[in-house]
Amino acid sequence: MTNHIVLFQPEIPGNTGSIARTCAGTYTHLHLIKPLGFSTDDKMLKRAGLDYWDSVNITYHESIEAFFESTEGHYYLLTKFGKKTYSNFDFSNSAEEHYFIFGRETTGLPDWVKEKYQDTALRMPMNDNIRSLNLSNTASILIYEALRQQDFPNLT
Amino acid sequence: MTNHIVLFQPEIPGNTGSIARTCAGTYTHLHLIKPLGFSTDDKMLKRAGLDYWDSVNITYHESIEAFFESTEGHYYLLTKFGKKTYSNFDFSNSAEEHYFIFGRETTGLPDWVKEKYQDTALRMPMNDNIRSLNLSNTASILIYEALRQQDFPNLT
Repeated sequence: MTNHIVLFQPEIPGNTGSIARTCAGTYTHLHLIKPLGFSTDDKMLKRAGLDYWDSVNITYHESIEAFFESTEGHYYLLTKFGKKTYSNFDFSNSAEEHYFIFGRETTGLPDWVKEKYQDTALRMPMNDNIRSLNLSNTASILIYEALRQQDFPNLT
Repeated sequence: MTNHIVLFQPEIPGNTGSIARTCAGTYTHLHLIKPLGFSTDDKMLKRAGLDYWDSVNITYHESIEAFFESTEGHYYLLTKFGKKTYSNFDFSNSAEEHYFIFGRETTGLPDWVKEKYQDTALRMPMNDNIRSLNLSNTASILIYEALRQQDFPNLT
């Protein structure tokens, strides 16, 4: 698969469920880094996305270190401190693997990850009215920007 | 304001709350067409978005007819039957008003609206695994595509 969404210790089942639905509809591989803040047979998760849970290619990772050890490709972070707007990155090569990594809703990503990958930290332009967009909206916007640059492969 | 999200009789407060947060962060005007499937002081709505509710420019409309009578600009629909991919439309003129109209979660838009505005019906590419994306994700993807074409006016 070309595009990957990586959720580091997600806490809110509705967010993960909604992201899973976007993944199911776009052949995006979903990576969940443990511990999760919910059970994957949790009622909330079912309500938010289980209709699509079986249609998603999901890999669970025991830690973020284990995730990096078992994957290879381009790693992008979405942080408030990204220097470059997300749409100015080139995601157009659909023969390569693009990993979009998102921190947990409350505490974000570990500092060492933000430092190591600061050159591919993305910024999503917004005003000061909000602290951030909803996690699921952010992930969907990024995936569809990558897909747009790739001319929506295998999607109609 | 340049960009507008129009929700026709939305049913799920979490969706509207999450869309309101995206609107608050992007100077997007939110239009809610009654009847709504929830109270705007509903606990669910508060949890999903009230932190940002007061930062959003919201207009309530008694009917979709009243909405069209009181507004002027480009009207776009998001439907499964749109003939053209959303990113192939030109939203770049930030001096014009762009209205993105979304049907209610279960039953969509009235037939006469779909017929009248069929030439500006947008399609969002996806596969057959899902019936649709989550409403809030769809709205956020569209608004950020419009903002991208407009070079993210007043956002940093």
